[in-house]
Amino acid sequence: MSFEASGIVTLLTDFGTRDDYVASMKGVLLTVHPGARIVDLTHDVTPQDIMEAAFTLGNCYHHFPPGTVHCVVVDPGVGARRREIVVLAQNHAFVGPDNGVFSRIYAMESSVEVRTIDNPDFKRGEISDTFHGRDIFAPTAGHLARGADPDEVGAVADSYAELYPPEPDVWAHLIKGEVIHIDGFGNIITNIHRDLFEKVVGERSFVVEVNGRRVSMLTRTYENGDVGKFLALFGSTDMLEVSVRGGSAEKRVGAGKGDTVTVTIVEEGKRPIRVPLP
Amino acid sequence: MSFEASGIVTLLTDFGTRDDYVASMKGVLLTVHPGARIVDLTHDVTPQDIMEAAFTLGNCYHHFPPGTVHCVVVDPGVGARRREIVVLAQNHAFVGPDNGVFSRIYAMESSVEVRTIDNPDFKRGEISDTFHGRDIFAPTAGHLARGADPDEVGAVADSYAELYPPEPDVWAHLIKGEVIHIDGFGNIITNIHRDLFEKVVGERSFVVEVNGRRVSMLTRTYENGDVGKFLALFGSTDMLEVSVRGGSAEKRVGAGKGDTVTVTIVEEGKRPIRVPLP
Amino acid sequence: MSFEASGIVTLLTDFGTRDDYVASMKGVLLTVHPGARIVDLTHDVTPQDIMEAAFTLGNCYHHFPPGTVHCVVVDPGVGARRREIVVLAQNHAFVGPDNGVFSRIYAMESSVEVRTIDNPDFKRGEISDTFHGRDIFAPTAGHLARGADPDEVGAVADSYAELYPPEPDVWAHLIKGEVIHIDGFGNIITNIHRDLFEKVVGERSFVVEVNGRRVSMLTRTYENGDVGKFLALFGSTDMLEVSVRGGSAEKRVGAGKGDTVTVTIVEEGKRPIRVPLP
Repeated sequence: MSFEASGIVTLLTDFGTRDDYVASMKGVLLTVHPGARIVDLTHDVTPQDIMEAAFTLGNCYHHFPPGTVHCVVVDPGVGARRREIVVLAQNHAFVGPDNGVFSRIYAMESSVEVRTIDNPDFKRGEISDTFHGRDIFAPTAGHLARGADPDEVGAVADSYAELYPPEPDVWAHLIKGEVIHIDGFGNIITNIHRDLFEKVVGERSFVVEVNGRRVSMLTRTYENGDVGKFLALFGSTDMLEVSVRGGSAEKRVGAGKGDTVTVTIVEEGKRPIRVPLP
Repeated sequence: MSFEASGIVTLLTDFGTRDDYVASMKGVLLTVHPGARIVDLTHDVTPQDIMEAAFTLGNCYHHFPPGTVHCVVVDPGVGARRREIVVLAQNHAFVGPDNGVFSRIYAMESSVEVRTIDNPDFKRGEISDTFHGRDIFAPTAGHLARGADPDEVGAVADSYAELYPPEPDVWAHLIKGEVIHIDGFGNIITNIHRDLFEKVVGERSFVVEVNGRRVSMLTRTYENGDVGKFLALFGSTDMLEVSVRGGSAEKRVGAGKGDTVTVTIVEEGKRPIRVPLP
Repeated sequence: MSFEASGIVTLLTDFGTRDDYVASMKGVLLTVHPGARIVDLTHDVTPQDIMEAAFTLGNCYHHFPPGTVHCVVVDPGVGARRREIVVLAQNHAFVGPDNGVFSRIYAMESSVEVRTIDNPDFKRGEISDTFHGRDIFAPTAGHLARGADPDEVGAVADSYAELYPPEPDVWAHLIKGEVIHIDGFGNIITNIHRDLFEKVVGERSFVVEVNGRRVSMLTRTYENGDVGKFLALFGSTDMLEVSVRGGSAEKRVGAGKGDTVTVTIVEEGKRPIRVPLP
């Protein structure tokens, strides 16, 4: 698959910014391609949380211009069995471990090409067992950013690791989803998409419930009602969120990733009904 | 007002660096202007603290070269009534919500031009209710950075939101100010400027007091006296600070934003006198 | 010593990213050289920890391309007696205080040239007592990055501050080192280098002990054994580390910088022997 490099390289890791790990990757990358334009996506992914990295990447990669190389290093299996790969899709290139970190790309793009990083010209001369970010992924990203042909990277892989995010269960009067992310504002983000909500709930009344806290009105913005009031809304990626005006819903509810979130239909004059389909 | 873009764009938000929000803004910005040179000011403003964002921006924007676009997204009212604006001053352009975040610019610059962002060409095609950083401010910043005419952005606004930082009260023998910032070293920064201090205190003896802790000597540097000693000095922005050599004054004093700080004149042979002007 | 600038400037400070300090440095730097390409190494060095800054810089500077300027501001003595210097080595330039922050450069490079920053053309017009990062180091870095001749900076210094990292003690059956760093994953990094370990231990059995926790097998990667198992391995800089698969060794062991780490030889059929050389 063709790839026309723009010179932009994004970095997404779980290294934090306190150690020299990210710095070393940037140094290696710039040594391969001094003209590379490096953009930090985040280095604060929860350590070794592949699913969170996949989620974050999936939310933002498509906002970058064609020709961007995305280098993702959330890699608990470094040096062990998992392979190193380059994924091409929509004139974006993704470089990282084959551990599921690119699952959202596979799910969202109709056509992808996956290659293993076999060619030693794309790696550093000496390769450690513990830091492929520096020794394999950064140099590969640098070579792709300076215009190297992705076909040279290595063989096409016909299978690759995928992780599946939890899907909500849907009944006639109930959507049962879960918390998939808490953002920096303490907004509780669920796996219930706006489209699913609209299809199931339509114009009917409903109650959203998470850890015993109930919210029954959908709002459009974070600035609705009094400060401290709970809100349900669709956030910037169109997923249902529970939020607190001017505060942290996470702290108020004590919610964490994986907690159950329900949307229950309220019938006229009745209490919320939770009826699984027969 | 004319603006000659340098291609440099700074970002200042309260998004933190853990989520995809900043990354999405960078992607949109680079899609509009792939040559943009993005500089992170900070993404660690206290969530929704407009005054803190205004303070941070006011301390550093003037160090940037002419032609810089500053994109500021501390925006609790996103999607609600507040307008989106571009401010031009001294060949700098500022992009963000009209919620007071540019107050220090208005206070420090003799001539500013404020325009509302009306022109849809400066925005993304689809605009969410919750993330104008991505959908309005980042693309506007990108267009300005690539040389678009600010006159095209929208109409000139003849009023705009301003927040006024707390001013110290001044009596004959007393300045009563407050803590306006705690920095990363734990230095306690007040709203008492060097000029005011020199005018009121002059060559007389004085005592600085915050939360019961008294400091009576002004020092020039952070490395004065023994480790652990309290110091009063004028920091890099010429505001009076209380500091601890080799430690955190914040932790030692238990101070926070808004706490009262007094400077009291000590008359020869007398205890500190606090005499309000008649 | 000659220096051919690439335009790349790295920043390493203990300022954190919440205040305007780093932002102000970037602004000044870009005002001096609008084409500078700034790379954040880290701003999260423990406040005023010169040794940690030296360690971090030593681990990554050599990965950057020739012509890089490294601007390091961990500077508790700002405004006091310590000098401001530029160090040249291997076509890299280092700018910062003469307080030992460049110790690893002196130790690793066979030829260095150190100059004091005397020339006012390399500084801002007005110089504060508390922020030489903004007023001296950033502009000097900017001038060097845009191609100024390092000979113009100031006089060659024939002495400079050096800090010596703690060296392990070695006996016939025992290496006694210490913890020199805890990384963001909670890996416990020691001052015992792979070469020393191999020379002393060779093919014999051994026990690594830190704070009462014993590990007796050396592994190659972080993904060995069951989740939660302790591992000893050589990390990306070839120093002996104690790690926990899928967790934080720091938290499990309660270790901190300076704690003793021993490697004890286990003789066939005997308990570990700790025999100091006679």
